[in-house]
Amino acid sequence: MSLRLILKRSYSAGKKATTMAGSNEKFTKVFNKIDELTPKFVDRLAKAVEIKAVSGDELLRPEVVKKAHFLSKQLELLGFEDIQLRELGTQPPPVNNPSLQLPPVVLSRYGSDPSKRTVLVYGHYDVQPASIEDGWDSEPFKLVIDEDKQLMRARGSSDDSGPLLGWLHVVQAHREAGVELPVNLITCFEGMEESGSIGLDKLIAQEAKGYFKSVDTVCISDNYWLGTRKPVLTYGLRGCSYYEVIIEGPGADLHSGIFGGVIAEPMTDLIKVLDSLVDSQGRILIKGINEMVAPVTEQEKKLYDDIEFSLDDMNEASGSETCLYKSKSDILMHRWRFPSLSIHGIEGAFSGSGAKTVIPARVAGKFSIRTVPNIEPRKLDKLVIEHCQSVFESLNSPNTFKAELIHDGDYWISDPFNASFTAAAKATKTVYGVEPDLTREGGSIPITLTFEKELKTNVLLLPMGRGDDGAHSINEKLDLSNFVGGTKTMAAYLHYYAESKEK
Amino acid sequence: MSLRLILKRSYSAGKKATTMAGSNEKFTKVFNKIDELTPKFVDRLAKAVEIKAVSGDELLRPEVVKKAHFLSKQLELLGFEDIQLRELGTQPPPVNNPSLQLPPVVLSRYGSDPSKRTVLVYGHYDVQPASIEDGWDSEPFKLVIDEDKQLMRARGSSDDSGPLLGWLHVVQAHREAGVELPVNLITCFEGMEESGSIGLDKLIAQEAKGYFKSVDTVCISDNYWLGTRKPVLTYGLRGCSYYEVIIEGPGADLHSGIFGGVIAEPMTDLIKVLDSLVDSQGRILIKGINEMVAPVTEQEKKLYDDIEFSLDDMNEASGSETCLYKSKSDILMHRWRFPSLSIHGIEGAFSGSGAKTVIPARVAGKFSIRTVPNIEPRKLDKLVIEHCQSVFESLNSPNTFKAELIHDGDYWISDPFNASFTAAAKATKTVYGVEPDLTREGGSIPITLTFEKELKTNVLLLPMGRGDDGAHSINEKLDLSNFVGGTKTMAAYLHYYAESKEK
Repeated sequence: MSLRLILKRSYSAGKKATTMAGSNEKFTKVFNKIDELTPKFVDRLAKAVEIKAVSGDELLRPEVVKKAHFLSKQLELLGFEDIQLRELGTQPPPVNNPSLQLPPVVLSRYGSDPSKRTVLVYGHYDVQPASIEDGWDSEPFKLVIDEDKQLMRARGSSDDSGPLLGWLHVVQAHREAGVELPVNLITCFEGMEESGSIGLDKLIAQEAKGYFKSVDTVCISDNYWLGTRKPVLTYGLRGCSYYEVIIEGPGADLHSGIFGGVIAEPMTDLIKVLDSLVDSQGRILIKGINEMVAPVTEQEKKLYDDIEFSLDDMNEASGSETCLYKSKSDILMHRWRFPSLSIHGIEGAFSGSGAKTVIPARVAGKFSIRTVPNIEPRKLDKLVIEHCQSVFESLNSPNTFKAELIHDGDYWISDPFNASFTAAAKATKTVYGVEPDLTREGGSIPITLTFEKELKTNVLLLPMGRGDDGAHSINEKLDLSNFVGGTKTMAAYLHYYAESKEK
Repeated sequence: MSLRLILKRSYSAGKKATTMAGSNEKFTKVFNKIDELTPKFVDRLAKAVEIKAVSGDELLRPEVVKKAHFLSKQLELLGFEDIQLRELGTQPPPVNNPSLQLPPVVLSRYGSDPSKRTVLVYGHYDVQPASIEDGWDSEPFKLVIDEDKQLMRARGSSDDSGPLLGWLHVVQAHREAGVELPVNLITCFEGMEESGSIGLDKLIAQEAKGYFKSVDTVCISDNYWLGTRKPVLTYGLRGCSYYEVIIEGPGADLHSGIFGGVIAEPMTDLIKVLDSLVDSQGRILIKGINEMVAPVTEQEKKLYDDIEFSLDDMNEASGSETCLYKSKSDILMHRWRFPSLSIHGIEGAFSGSGAKTVIPARVAGKFSIRTVPNIEPRKLDKLVIEHCQSVFESLNSPNTFKAELIHDGDYWISDPFNASFTAAAKATKTVYGVEPDLTREGGSIPITLTFEKELKTNVLLLPMGRGDDGAHSINEKLDLSNFVGGTKTMAAYLHYYAESKEK
């Protein structure tokens, strides 16, 4: 396959960037080198995604570890120093193998000049599960280049191996172009992000005054553009509080022919509790939650007007016309700054195809609330659990009830005009020729908050991929122009951040 | 293991029976022979249950077929004639293997004397799935004799290999005792009962004027005593109409962080529809159903008074104290003669352990209604589907809705004082020394209706096992006294039926 030929056509972002940054010789050199090295970068990504680093599959844990070693080797080749594969111990239950080791965090440094600022870059090398049987157009653990669409398809291409390698490529381009990296870089690459980042919080806290002591800012490249056309910087994330309501009745699953009508069925009670949580228009029915939400200011309202997004984008993303709102600002506000409640499913009930006449003995309903400023997590827990308890009590059922928080992560919001965001905005303008949209996201990246709290620094979310990359879905892809443009943006960001006056 | 020794202690039912029937030389001979042959009968049952005839597991289909051949061989050894393994063709979808053959129905005759009545005996040789990992005390496909409890434990021991072999043992005992069988016997043993009796309806219809032409009555031994102490005859079964409500929204499962709050979630709508069906006291909320139920007469009320059953029995059976009623007659009426609605589960939603932040794209809620006289199935379908449709429409949701019947089987009720029931009652009195309770059951055995309609005969349900045999559960067992007593009851039944004046 003539990769070189294919890639030549994908350099639109690159060419534009070179022109935009024409006044800056460093940028020209680095960007030209990124263009030149792109086939090598694609090759490195191809090698990376071939390793089946699925953190959620215990049997594939050796592959996750193998990928950590692969990265370590690449970092070494590119001149990174103090490379450490930090072990996090055994994985806590629930696990099948009680001695299962967590994959290591890959720490490394590039440069340690005390006169330079230090940027910690975070990425994750583990991936979501994938199998061609799920409906992929090609083997998910083999990078396939779609010449027509100018994209690279593979599990991990966009989430998050492509962006993670971006930082290595920035360093390689500087070295080979003979341009000095304007900052000290520290990498923090984890292998458990898709499985709750187990162990990373603790490591960050431990190294706040150790490996990460000199860090001035943190840049995470593990999210996406809002749409497919315009680059964004992300300054807010909703949190997530995940609950379960467990209702238990008979000692074992029963036959509905024999017991139907005489036994208080746990499913009946659970459905009634779940029904009380949210209405079909997405309104949360638990009292006191909406009251905690920060009011929308006039200033904020205007922010939504300029963002490139439409109802059509939403419908395309959901593959349906089931959006609850028609206007751009309503959609974005309900996605970013209002809470939502989703009922995910029921554990213990019949879930197969066909018909089974079972009365499940113990059912656990799962739902989560996406949290936003100024919802207080502990107050939320109290409201949710007391609400469920009160609905259950009103049923007068002989079954037993329990409601509990399974896990939570707080919301995050940053100042989108601080030095790091400003540098990233300039970099975006330089590479893509447009001001990035300032976005928030509906999902949570809990590690964002950990970095902010433990290192007492700002955190920037600088996405490389597009909104339609299919990160957790089939046919995950990364557009070649995003791979190239994203890497250039990372490079330019480091320069602008180094030059900025304020930290 | 001194099986003989163990079994000696289990002959209480047998000894009593021999005494009770002392005046009838034929009975004495046959019953003594059954006692004498019991170790051989246990051995035959042990051989039968070792074959993993799980009809619901496609990969085990060869085992189901093997068991048909095993039965055929046993029938041949015992002098049955015209033995046919009737093929039913390929199994209709959904199947993984589209050329999967249905297991054969084992037809055979013992005697064809036109001066005798002909009794068709039905049983099934297939079994429910079982694995020691489910929590069995011993390997489920190996017959284990529990000496202390005087029972035989194995998958299929009570459901339905023990009762099925009972008919073979009746013939063997007559032959070896030198007593003529008072009726012609036809066997109809199927291998798909646990998987919907696919193909059997058609065979019965085809053979109504063929193999089954001379049948005077049908006896099914595939149910259980109400409790653990008193034998019963069963004259009624509830029907079952199984429905699903399918709600579809987005084109694929979505991430609740990204789409929560902006998309109309199918789960939210489905929970609202399911919530409208039944209350926590088991009352069906769909209008028009309770109105179809035959009123309780004063005469009927009295029937429940004499039945040996209590709230304690119910609680023991359910392994809990979650019964909705306190009085015996309320419990029995709600189990036997009132309809009930059970919500079984949801297909397409998250059903695993842990926490998954998914918005399921397509969810199918499954529920069924147990039907009783005089609910008309087609009218019921209309009421149910229109009710669900109307609730969904009230939600004003952009999602799509469908409600449909998955399958149904009508209720069945017989005259418990006809010749066949009267003969069985006499037989029970002879063997166990008590009048059997006349019971109905909450579950359905659809083939009962098919025999009645196609052969235009009465059907008797004559259980061998006890209410706590755990037919579809772990540690399925058959008490030795029921195995012996049940076989004697079958034998006596044939004699009393042959002697009765009316058909």
